[in-house]
Amino acid sequence: MADLKFSLLNKDKNSGARRAVLTTAHGDVDTPVFMPVGTAGAVKGITPQQLKDTGANIILANTYHLLLRPGVDVVENLGGLHKLMAWNGPILTDSGGYQVFSLSSLTKIDDDGVEFASHVDGKKIYLNAKIATQIQNRLGADIIMCFDQCTPFPCEDSQLKQAVERTICWAEQCKQAHANQNQLLFGIVQGGIDLQMRTHCASELVKLDFDGYAIGGLSVGEGHENMIKTVSHTAELLPENKPRYLMGVGTPADIIAAVKAGVDMFDCVLPTRNGRNSFAFTENGPVRMRNSIHINDNNPIEAGCQCYCCKNFSRGTIRHFFNVSEMLGPILVSLHNLSFYQRLMAEIRQKIQENGFDAWADQQLKKYITFGTNSANSL
Amino acid sequence: MADLKFSLLNKDKNSGARRAVLTTAHGDVDTPVFMPVGTAGAVKGITPQQLKDTGANIILANTYHLLLRPGVDVVENLGGLHKLMAWNGPILTDSGGYQVFSLSSLTKIDDDGVEFASHVDGKKIYLNAKIATQIQNRLGADIIMCFDQCTPFPCEDSQLKQAVERTICWAEQCKQAHANQNQLLFGIVQGGIDLQMRTHCASELVKLDFDGYAIGGLSVGEGHENMIKTVSHTAELLPENKPRYLMGVGTPADIIAAVKAGVDMFDCVLPTRNGRNSFAFTENGPVRMRNSIHINDNNPIEAGCQCYCCKNFSRGTIRHFFNVSEMLGPILVSLHNLSFYQRLMAEIRQKIQENGFDAWADQQLKKYITFGTNSANSL
Repeated sequence: MADLKFSLLNKDKNSGARRAVLTTAHGDVDTPVFMPVGTAGAVKGITPQQLKDTGANIILANTYHLLLRPGVDVVENLGGLHKLMAWNGPILTDSGGYQVFSLSSLTKIDDDGVEFASHVDGKKIYLNAKIATQIQNRLGADIIMCFDQCTPFPCEDSQLKQAVERTICWAEQCKQAHANQNQLLFGIVQGGIDLQMRTHCASELVKLDFDGYAIGGLSVGEGHENMIKTVSHTAELLPENKPRYLMGVGTPADIIAAVKAGVDMFDCVLPTRNGRNSFAFTENGPVRMRNSIHINDNNPIEAGCQCYCCKNFSRGTIRHFFNVSEMLGPILVSLHNLSFYQRLMAEIRQKIQENGFDAWADQQLKKYITFGTNSANSL
Repeated sequence: MADLKFSLLNKDKNSGARRAVLTTAHGDVDTPVFMPVGTAGAVKGITPQQLKDTGANIILANTYHLLLRPGVDVVENLGGLHKLMAWNGPILTDSGGYQVFSLSSLTKIDDDGVEFASHVDGKKIYLNAKIATQIQNRLGADIIMCFDQCTPFPCEDSQLKQAVERTICWAEQCKQAHANQNQLLFGIVQGGIDLQMRTHCASELVKLDFDGYAIGGLSVGEGHENMIKTVSHTAELLPENKPRYLMGVGTPADIIAAVKAGVDMFDCVLPTRNGRNSFAFTENGPVRMRNSIHINDNNPIEAGCQCYCCKNFSRGTIRHFFNVSEMLGPILVSLHNLSFYQRLMAEIRQKIQENGFDAWADQQLKKYITFGTNSANSL
């Protein structure tokens, strides 16, 4: 196994928030951290150099997408995931579970695994815990995830229970199959918003002693309050000396509230997907850059923002780029949003370090929740 | 008038090629030079920082596109073209003539000017020499162009003659209307591939004493040989102490042959348009990055190339990005192609400086012509 090092630097006195450093084979990660999503090996429209300039130091790639195209053999032939992504820092791959259950047509599922039809060409593919782990071992990310069964929201109790049992069983199989000593393997807690299920799943996974623990199956329509209630409950069940990762989350409000509950790691497509749709995150709320109110606006997207976009381009210019379908529109707003998220995480880390996180977080949460926590997702 | 400074540094002994420095209000330009095209205020998919890193130091924007969207008032309100493009170096705007005759539906044309319907929304717009000059004065580029009438290829003699007479007449009106002392104004020689027409047009324009002279109306289907024959003939008619600009050209072979004939400046969409279509320029000929022969290829697009793309990404990765429609595919190949063109121009300048241009050019021309001079245009 990789030599896991998760060093807690500071714990907030009034909340679960903590400041730590996670050591991986490709470098250290200051947590709490946000990981931009490079689905098929690229963060859409953003070069690794630009990504680094936003402050990112760990990124995520999706096993499901890479498995379909270009395939694991090709990734290996091209020198592995770090080489393919031209990213020499830490990378995390998910297990493919989420996409199998959300993107593909399932053709068969049982306690052993899942057969599905590729959303690209309909090709039948079989995945189970062992195969998903072997694939991730070969892709070569620094952190890999257990193969889990994700449930929709809402979800019937019997379905939820079956998914949790399978997730526990598959986690054990993943741990057994894991054979790349340079990688950390994280377990994933499932259980919807059923706190008892979460307790059961967490306690079984903790027995298996993973390098870190993810909270999965959230941000699927349950809403901010249900999400945070579940996260708060689950985070407390996880070992203090291991990193906690809330998968696929989220808005600034989601992240701040989850950090407060003790979460260390996040990933989400919001900064880039919304950026491509002209939706900019700012500390004063969302701004839609396509809007004609910006036509003659000489101000940057966000005053004081030090990102490449805000230092060089006005709202008027960005609005023009969207209006004429110039690629720079989506690229620049994605860059701003990625920078915004990294700035938010840097501020979170600083506030925890200064023992001022809790009060700051409550103030920020009030502000961000007035902007609407789900509006960003609907674009 | 702007204080024109065009300093000849070296002339090739065996050809018309020359090495010079053109001084503009936003800095010096080493010629021969290639100008990337930022049609509507952006080089497609490429940030100004990335563009600078390719070696570009002067860029082009299209008056026609900017006039339609966002409009001249908006460009002024946003601080002018340099601010809008986030480009603090030299910029050249064309007059809009070429696009009026190629993109829009002409509704009326006479000796005074042109009425056309916008290709975006059908709005009727009137342009003549005075208006086109006033628009360019307001956009604020460092070099602006006279409003000219472009002809198709082939073109009837009577139509060609009428277009040449109008171009001469409009050039005089542009010179009279020109009212921004920070800008250089270039005249445009028209006349298709009719050498007598070119002689007539050039001699009339030279009498008007422009800051520089362009050769327009080429690269419209006449082929490499006709183009170079016309360029060689026309370049000799232009004053030695003024810059010469071959508009909208071209392939590496076109550029090398035109430099040999005494041309100093070029612009073309080929590096970016072809880049978006996965077509990469290399010294060993064109490479189509979509091609499945690259699937497992660990080599860069071009061995030894120092561009961001070649230093970081393999052919296999780029092929994958095109295969899954990742924006990075078009971006990276555009970056490579822009770098390739700048490298070509740097080599041209060096060879002229070293008095070795002519022999080198003949060798290069033989090589590039075997790759096919027009293949790049057909993508």
